[in-house]
Amino acid sequence: MSKLVIVGTVAFDAIETPFGKTDKILGGAATYIGLSASQFNVDSAAVSVVGGDFPQEYLDLLTDRNVNIDGVEIVKDGKTFFWSGKYHNDMNSRDTLVTELNVLETFNPVVPVAYRDAEIVMLGNLHPLVQLGVLEQMTKKPKLTILDTMDFWMNIALDDLKKVISKIDVITINDEEARQLSGEYSLVNAAKKIHEMGPKYVVIKKGEHGALLFHNNDMFYAPALPLAEVFDPTGAGDTFAGGFAGYLAKSGNISFENMKNAVIYGSTLASFCVEKFGTERMLSLKPEEVKTRLQQFKELTQFDIELK
Amino acid sequence: MSKLVIVGTVAFDAIETPFGKTDKILGGAATYIGLSASQFNVDSAAVSVVGGDFPQEYLDLLTDRNVNIDGVEIVKDGKTFFWSGKYHNDMNSRDTLVTELNVLETFNPVVPVAYRDAEIVMLGNLHPLVQLGVLEQMTKKPKLTILDTMDFWMNIALDDLKKVISKIDVITINDEEARQLSGEYSLVNAAKKIHEMGPKYVVIKKGEHGALLFHNNDMFYAPALPLAEVFDPTGAGDTFAGGFAGYLAKSGNISFENMKNAVIYGSTLASFCVEKFGTERMLSLKPEEVKTRLQQFKELTQFDIELK
Repeated sequence: MSKLVIVGTVAFDAIETPFGKTDKILGGAATYIGLSASQFNVDSAAVSVVGGDFPQEYLDLLTDRNVNIDGVEIVKDGKTFFWSGKYHNDMNSRDTLVTELNVLETFNPVVPVAYRDAEIVMLGNLHPLVQLGVLEQMTKKPKLTILDTMDFWMNIALDDLKKVISKIDVITINDEEARQLSGEYSLVNAAKKIHEMGPKYVVIKKGEHGALLFHNNDMFYAPALPLAEVFDPTGAGDTFAGGFAGYLAKSGNISFENMKNAVIYGSTLASFCVEKFGTERMLSLKPEEVKTRLQQFKELTQFDIELK
Repeated sequence: MSKLVIVGTVAFDAIETPFGKTDKILGGAATYIGLSASQFNVDSAAVSVVGGDFPQEYLDLLTDRNVNIDGVEIVKDGKTFFWSGKYHNDMNSRDTLVTELNVLETFNPVVPVAYRDAEIVMLGNLHPLVQLGVLEQMTKKPKLTILDTMDFWMNIALDDLKKVISKIDVITINDEEARQLSGEYSLVNAAKKIHEMGPKYVVIKKGEHGALLFHNNDMFYAPALPLAEVFDPTGAGDTFAGGFAGYLAKSGNISFENMKNAVIYGSTLASFCVEKFGTERMLSLKPEEVKTRLQQFKELTQFDIELK
């Protein structure tokens, strides 16, 4: 089993969907990635920052699940990053209502010494210079580095983003962002251009339409499980990334064939995340439920055509 | 092997895409369905109508491929149905420029006597009363009836459409049309409502995002092959339906498991259709090419997770 370093926000979210709204609840990319990866019982560490207002019980939710938080800095007189958003009726788009960076503004990530030789590094959505800073602290070249990002950084820090993209192995990005980053409409062509920027593997997340994995001319397509109701999409992309990274850390096999399985695990875990507000569903998730849903994914996608 | 009856338009199309434009070329739902189904060497018959202006060589393209045209009426002093459309840059939407119904306005379909006991009936896009008229001519209850339709008929002939929908086994319909017909946004809920209208099987076509097959609580998802370029989407939905129906006619097995294969064959054939203007690619398509692409579909979708 490999050690896994997880970088990303640990945050307060306030979410509004057609089904209801929440006060400030637990959120953040590193939170969702950590909860998702914890399904594989890997030895992981979160690198992040929170303020003095962040409840100890939220941190305990991570440590309870074997996510080391020595790299989560607590700025006693600072306030935790806060994001608030409202989803439209179709759940495919949202408006950001509030973004308070707070302690993130001056965040210098520190990877705990015990994790600087981790084999897998998952760089969750954060400023590309923070992502880069984490990479530079690794004392041994990781077996696999995975980066997730979003259009926000393309808009305000494209050069920094391109620099970190040139150094990583796998990028996970959504379809519109892949188009923006590459200037190509076709996702096949977009993946090709993004390959040329550095990553050997490109994962394009298409929300309710699933996810595509590209590696040179090889492609793999994992559908999203069709659901009667999507309750709250917040964190689904991070949960996908956490399942992807967690499965690879557990299996230790980073072949393309095994990455297909990692994409399926990512999609499976994301399908749970959207069933309730915030992290609620991920916190109650049992291994047997994951197994049952993987079986559903098999029935959903596997067919039996003999080619003679 | 089962006999297959194909109902639909045989038409002239004029198409404009970002890649170029055509004069009047061969088109029509029955044409695309017939060409696609002919890949399975099934005994099929088209039921349609053309005008005196329709070239014999176009009809020969069908008979050359074992599609019987005794049921294609030729109205000597009439003009063939003509459709013209222009695709937007993203290829996912189009404007209809011209629709001249011509001989379709007074069309009374006649199923050739030799095909009135066909096991599979594929009702391609046409007025629901024409589709119903064909069903009523069958002397033996078909093993499987498949209906394709579009929003146009929902808008002007909903009651007739619901009547024919209540009598068929499989409906193929695109995602937006499924939402319109059911009043449900979630495709899972839309399929449920459409089941209640009659069809035991609901196929929802999502264009570049693939197709979903529903049967009670069972689901199957076939992706569309991600393509660097979609040259002309015209006929892709009909080609999908023709592959679906043709494969089932050839195999004679209408179990849900075998319908999964039929959906994959439909997707595979549709992925060729969009590579060139109109029917051009389907007319040059070789069995070896289909086999190679099926192998691509396998690599695209199949994974190997052991559930213990």
